Amino acid sequence: MPDRCDTRWMSAAISLAARGEGLTRPNPNVGCLIVTDGRVVGRGWTQAGGRPHAEAMALAGAGDSARGATAYVTLEPCAHASTRGPACADSLIAAGLARVVVATTDPDPRTNGEGIARLRAAGIRVDCGVGEVAARAAMPGWWSRVTRTRPFVTLKLATSLDGAIAMASGESRWITADRARAHAHLLRARCDAILVGRGTFDADRPALDVRLPGLEFRSPVRFVLTSSPLPASASGWTSLARPDAIKDHATVQHLLVEGGAGTAAAFLAGGLVDRLILYRAPILIGGGRPCLGDIGLASLSDAHGQWQLAGARQFGPDRVEIYQRDG
Amino acid sequence: MPDRCDTRWMSAAISLAARGEGLTRPNPNVGCLIVTDGRVVGRGWTQAGGRPHAEAMALAGAGDSARGATAYVTLEPCAHASTRGPACADSLIAAGLARVVVATTDPDPRTNGEGIARLRAAGIRVDCGVGEVAARAAMPGWWSRVTRTRPFVTLKLATSLDGAIAMASGESRWITADRARAHAHLLRARCDAILVGRGTFDADRPALDVRLPGLEFRSPVRFVLTSSPLPASASGWTSLARPDAIKDHATVQHLLVEGGAGTAAAFLAGGLVDRLILYRAPILIGGGRPCLGDIGLASLSDAHGQWQLAGARQFGPDRVEIYQRDG
Repeated sequence: MPDRCDTRWMSAAISLAARGEGLTRPNPNVGCLIVTDGRVVGRGWTQAGGRPHAEAMALAGAGDSARGATAYVTLEPCAHASTRGPACADSLIAAGLARVVVATTDPDPRTNGEGIARLRAAGIRVDCGVGEVAARAAMPGWWSRVTRTRPFVTLKLATSLDGAIAMASGESRWITADRARAHAHLLRARCDAILVGRGTFDADRPALDVRLPGLEFRSPVRFVLTSSPLPASASGWTSLARPDAIKDHATVQHLLVEGGAGTAAAFLAGGLVDRLILYRAPILIGGGRPCLGDIGLASLSDAHGQWQLAGARQFGPDRVEIYQRDG
Repeated sequence: MPDRCDTRWMSAAISLAARGEGLTRPNPNVGCLIVTDGRVVGRGWTQAGGRPHAEAMALAGAGDSARGATAYVTLEPCAHASTRGPACADSLIAAGLARVVVATTDPDPRTNGEGIARLRAAGIRVDCGVGEVAARAAMPGWWSRVTRTRPFVTLKLATSLDGAIAMASGESRWITADRARAHAHLLRARCDAILVGRGTFDADRPALDVRLPGLEFRSPVRFVLTSSPLPASASGWTSLARPDAIKDHATVQHLLVEGGAGTAAAFLAGGLVDRLILYRAPILIGGGRPCLGDIGLASLSDAHGQWQLAGARQFGPDRVEIYQRDG
């Protein structure tokens, strides 16, 4: 049976998985830890572009120490070989692992229990379900794409205490201070696509890149929500006619919606927002531009029970709150 | 010299002082603790209407035990006798206190150091300044009235995450849940006057009373910000033509402004708001009525550095944040 140590090792593997978030498409961002006699002998996480897989990296690090060891993997090892590498289940068998602890089965129909079955058939003890909720939450984009055929959508809003994203004049630089803005760039690095509305695009033509030293290469691909053609100068931008059309962009696993108010409202009205990230500066604007347009709310009672606070942090003067869909 | 025990005893006296907040006008809400050999022998706080004073209540409780004891008083004992009672400085001398620890001197010109001088002249050791900032903060209304000739003003806003106080239709019941609303009633009980704008008055004719068991009698007096006469049916309401006209109502020590958006903006634009209390429900309204009208902000940079988070609490699903004027 899994024990408390298993939970802790899996937690470490999930932290490794988070390193690849936003980088591994079309593959999931997986983490893998190889442990023998209470000592870590191998660590791996899915690399940019999806290869090597986490298990391959961890096995390479562990070498002969993998023999008789336990592997903690945040997702069921894949059962399908490809031109890009062997199936991880086969690699774990070949390396002589004694036990594999898996957080969650892989809903990909090419694996979907087959990875675990193959390990067991080879005499490896497999425990599944350790840290399942946290492991899924660490790969929200991939999980959403595979199980719901649409990306996970995070909506980011940065407002004053009175809920404004700009003064009535449009002046919006800056509401939050540098530390909160740096955190927002880190958020971009964890997503693989980012979207603004046509108004924001025309007014600012924002770079939407990741301006953090060492993470510049993690800038997500850029979308504009618009029903009219983009100008020829908009190279590197993709237009999206409706919020739910993002489903058709199969490589997008985690979309970050950055506003403005109409765009945020369109995604909310479509029931497409899975997570809200609210940055709030301790300022009052008064009569400014509200952060959110009409979302089609019929009655105030319908607004309740939709969102649950999942985390909060203070960044200098500003506070960030994370809300997840409730239930 | 004052020691750490003094700080703790004074802190307890300040808690007693808070019991009278909103009840003691025109007098300050003072707390008094009488301690001998590390044991509390008397406790007092200014009673409703301002008498008995905290010291009189504590001395009555202590009886003969006050002889040789130390009194902790959140405000310098008064030096002026009145028809309503003797001067507290004289009462402390008569009771034979050995030492009096005072948080802050009394800026009332009838005392203003005279109370301390009289105690010292009688051979009582007096230490002043212990817990000064906290003691003043416990009687914000009285302190503001005496030192600034205007009341302390608290602005309360209850909003959705997107800063709305109602749906576009005007529907506003309820945004926050019952625990946050109960806390808002407690806030009313600590103020001696409450104000809404004419729009809110006409739409809702709100009771603005304290609906908490045992505290109903603490309902504050009611004002409407309006330039036109109130209807004859508005008995129990006082009209106020401009925000700063509240200065002329000398008995008002602590005014609570409850909205709506235009009224909140008028008090903020006038620089009259000392404290913001924001209740936020984890809901999105979208395209609703914003919580704050134009406050005359010229530039976004002017908005920064005005408010500092002074406290926050969670009430069920809702969060309350308290901001004080910065600097």
